[in-house]
Amino acid sequence: MIQEKIVPLKQLEPAFLDRGIFFGDGVYEVIRSYNGKIFALDEHLQRFAGSLTAIGITDVDIEQIRCRIQQAFESAEISNAKIYFHITRGSATRNHTWEANLKPNFFLTVTELPDDIKEKSDGITVSTHPDWRWKRCDIKSLNLLPNVLARQDATQKGCAEAIFVDEAGLITEGAASAFFAIFKNALQTAPLTANILPSITRNYVIKAAKNIGLEVSEKSLTPHQASQADELFIAVTTKDIIPVVKFDGKTIGDGKPGKYTKQLMQEFHKFTK
Amino acid sequence: MIQEKIVPLKQLEPAFLDRGIFFGDGVYEVIRSYNGKIFALDEHLQRFAGSLTAIGITDVDIEQIRCRIQQAFESAEISNAKIYFHITRGSATRNHTWEANLKPNFFLTVTELPDDIKEKSDGITVSTHPDWRWKRCDIKSLNLLPNVLARQDATQKGCAEAIFVDEAGLITEGAASAFFAIFKNALQTAPLTANILPSITRNYVIKAAKNIGLEVSEKSLTPHQASQADELFIAVTTKDIIPVVKFDGKTIGDGKPGKYTKQLMQEFHKFTK
Repeated sequence: MIQEKIVPLKQLEPAFLDRGIFFGDGVYEVIRSYNGKIFALDEHLQRFAGSLTAIGITDVDIEQIRCRIQQAFESAEISNAKIYFHITRGSATRNHTWEANLKPNFFLTVTELPDDIKEKSDGITVSTHPDWRWKRCDIKSLNLLPNVLARQDATQKGCAEAIFVDEAGLITEGAASAFFAIFKNALQTAPLTANILPSITRNYVIKAAKNIGLEVSEKSLTPHQASQADELFIAVTTKDIIPVVKFDGKTIGDGKPGKYTKQLMQEFHKFTK
Repeated sequence: MIQEKIVPLKQLEPAFLDRGIFFGDGVYEVIRSYNGKIFALDEHLQRFAGSLTAIGITDVDIEQIRCRIQQAFESAEISNAKIYFHITRGSATRNHTWEANLKPNFFLTVTELPDDIKEKSDGITVSTHPDWRWKRCDIKSLNLLPNVLARQDATQKGCAEAIFVDEAGLITEGAASAFFAIFKNALQTAPLTANILPSITRNYVIKAAKNIGLEVSEKSLTPHQASQADELFIAVTTKDIIPVVKFDGKTIGDGKPGKYTKQLMQEFHKFTK
């Protein structure tokens, strides 16, 4: 426990001068393992490299990051693990501009990831929230306050996730998930733009959908359209597919996880083996 | 220097689990002193309280914050000081939602603030950048990556500040400053909306403008309009008024700080005594 104290700036631990805390000046990833095997590591590392480049953090050796992830995962001895990591631009006295020689900070945690059986079998309820995020949500950055506030709003409404709606009245994605609707035999989700995170789980969902014979339509939908869907679900690395049975108070289908959603969950699990 | 190491989560310093770094889940202020006297402390504390409320950080005793600021300022013995402080929601294992009993983290630095004589006498150049920020810039939050990227872009163009332009093609404000234009005997600046920080320096600039007989118009302007202004300047706590002599490569007036800008600088300094 750190007590209240006053120290000369030079004696401060670098963690207190991390640009990650001053500015959210960093990017992150969340990966998971299934039964002792890390899922989609290459894709996550590739996206991570893209995020680093997008905010101008250079000289990060992605292969070294891969080694650290594997080393930490092995040390933790957790079969179904959530692996979180971020890189920030480094620690320095607060200044918007940065010195060219700043050394990035790397941080990683490995924690137990129990499957939430109830969420998968019963589905969850979601509520909408204005999409207050910045205009480069394609970058997986540490600027997540709008996501936090939206999720908290959902929690207060008794919902498990917030679904963002932009100024044009279109659904972008969830506060920490991709969002999908099924109409008849077609899967629909928003197209990838600067306002959408290129979700890796989303890619696998689309692949799974094609495998089970669904049509795939990358087209934005309104909350009203979503509430009329035959089935809804969200997808996120830590939980893969979670059925949505209520949208802004409106029951979806018969209020139970839909048949295609259940098929997609099964199909998705084939990828993780 | 922290070395690379793997430790059990429970042994991690709380600084590494700060929601400020995971999410930018906190708010901040920058205050300055002139000749041993803190300027506009009440206004900054009031805005800080508003930011805390806006993101749902409760139970912060603002009078205790005031005491800490004064105590740190006195300990530092810096006559012209920059006082930075932030409060984050606290330290916890990463999760978008937060526990009700989380204890906020407080952090403050006091550093020397030398007046940049050259900037004030010669003026600065600025460049525009798309306003990528979130939709609640009225909250002074730690989500500042768009500001950092815009400022860096300006620096690379040899400019001292980036001026944000929103999707409607209107100037909002600077990456870390308020933005003002003077046309004839009228001062113009964007009105306070959810996309503008309610700048305290801005208030004092408007007061100074009225004192010297300028009309004040709170109305957004386009980059083209700005480039045709008689005078331009930015205003920020740490530097008060800084003349802008070049806007996106276009020379403003005769390329020297304008007469009203100089009068405003003098008038502003009366407030700080």
